[in-house]
Amino acid sequence: MKVGILGSGTVGRTLAEGFVRVGDDPMIGTRDVEALMARTEPERPGAVPFATWHEEHPEVAVGSFADAGRHGEILVNSTAGAASVDALRAAGAEEMDGTVVIDTSNPLDFSSGFPPSLFVCNTDSLAETIQREFPGIRVVKAWNTVTAALMTNPKVVADGDHSLPICGHDALAKASVTELLERFGWTDVIDLGDLTAARAMEAYLPIWLRFMQATETPLFNTKVVR
Amino acid sequence: MKVGILGSGTVGRTLAEGFVRVGDDPMIGTRDVEALMARTEPERPGAVPFATWHEEHPEVAVGSFADAGRHGEILVNSTAGAASVDALRAAGAEEMDGTVVIDTSNPLDFSSGFPPSLFVCNTDSLAETIQREFPGIRVVKAWNTVTAALMTNPKVVADGDHSLPICGHDALAKASVTELLERFGWTDVIDLGDLTAARAMEAYLPIWLRFMQATETPLFNTKVVR
Repeated sequence: MKVGILGSGTVGRTLAEGFVRVGDDPMIGTRDVEALMARTEPERPGAVPFATWHEEHPEVAVGSFADAGRHGEILVNSTAGAASVDALRAAGAEEMDGTVVIDTSNPLDFSSGFPPSLFVCNTDSLAETIQREFPGIRVVKAWNTVTAALMTNPKVVADGDHSLPICGHDALAKASVTELLERFGWTDVIDLGDLTAARAMEAYLPIWLRFMQATETPLFNTKVVR
Repeated sequence: MKVGILGSGTVGRTLAEGFVRVGDDPMIGTRDVEALMARTEPERPGAVPFATWHEEHPEVAVGSFADAGRHGEILVNSTAGAASVDALRAAGAEEMDGTVVIDTSNPLDFSSGFPPSLFVCNTDSLAETIQREFPGIRVVKAWNTVTAALMTNPKVVADGDHSLPICGHDALAKASVTELLERFGWTDVIDLGDLTAARAMEAYLPIWLRFMQATETPLFNTKVVR
């Protein structure tokens, strides 16, 4: 499967590695390929510059947002929340008809430091904003509730015994995303309903961040015990 | 221990039963005792009128908010979010000095139907509003993330193998609430930090409601798997 991954940060890279692992053909899309490749500073402490990462993963194609938009039979938005609408526009989402877009983004506002607040919440969500902006795509919210390392590798924590919520307006799109998630080893994908449930999934981020601080690791997830 | 429970709804009643079970002395406080006792209609479908419930639980004292405020060495706010500040004022919270108040409330706004939105969120919370309003009390946010039946009886679900977040400004107050929770069988109480974490705990409600819809029962909880 050809996958267009928007965003070259930790999430985009880790997803690309995951899709390669299961035999898919991912392309990472970015705003400015030359600038990305020329960067010698890591984007954050502990990370490596993109070019260094790409040397170790030459099987991952890299292109512009538009290239990734053309490449992908399915798209994954893993850009920063504040940049997501622009990235999808650059990827050609306005002209798409039926393309499934997995939205992993969170509307985090770091303008007042850590922990961030949300720049859209409560009665609206970033996923709904994206869906309104690009009515031709089929947005499925997923993966925004776990750290990058778990997205395509849930067994890293407790052998995968935890839950992943998803939501979206289109039942068929959700079914195909659920299948995709199960290929990666997710065993408890919980459909929370239509895309208005993204308000709930994005509003979960604040408690996720607090759990991360309390457990002192991003390598955790919540399991819906019933 | 003498416990003042503010609120006569399902949460207040179930908490009172739980405190009685472990040998404590709870008093339910309400706005208007006579009116509450005279009510013959249940507050919601499936519930019973308060007087009917109280006939079966005569060991639970009932009084005004002020009575419960005087009775309790510790208070539990289990009123509706929109009524919480008024209830605590009526209970005498303005004059309290050091009283621990467990705040179980959620700022739910049902004015646009179900699912509710939150009437305070993101950069503030109901718990912080209460703490600002009554600086003499020591607010510990707890129990707002689970259904009433689990609060004092976590073993009802998966033998108690799930998590309960708490937060508050006062470390000693949190320690005594943690002890209280452990008496009821909670084994994974997670301290999320100071009371600003209540923003996260209250913002969890939307996904709790979606999980309830998806699992078709309020008898579930999340476990932080790490």
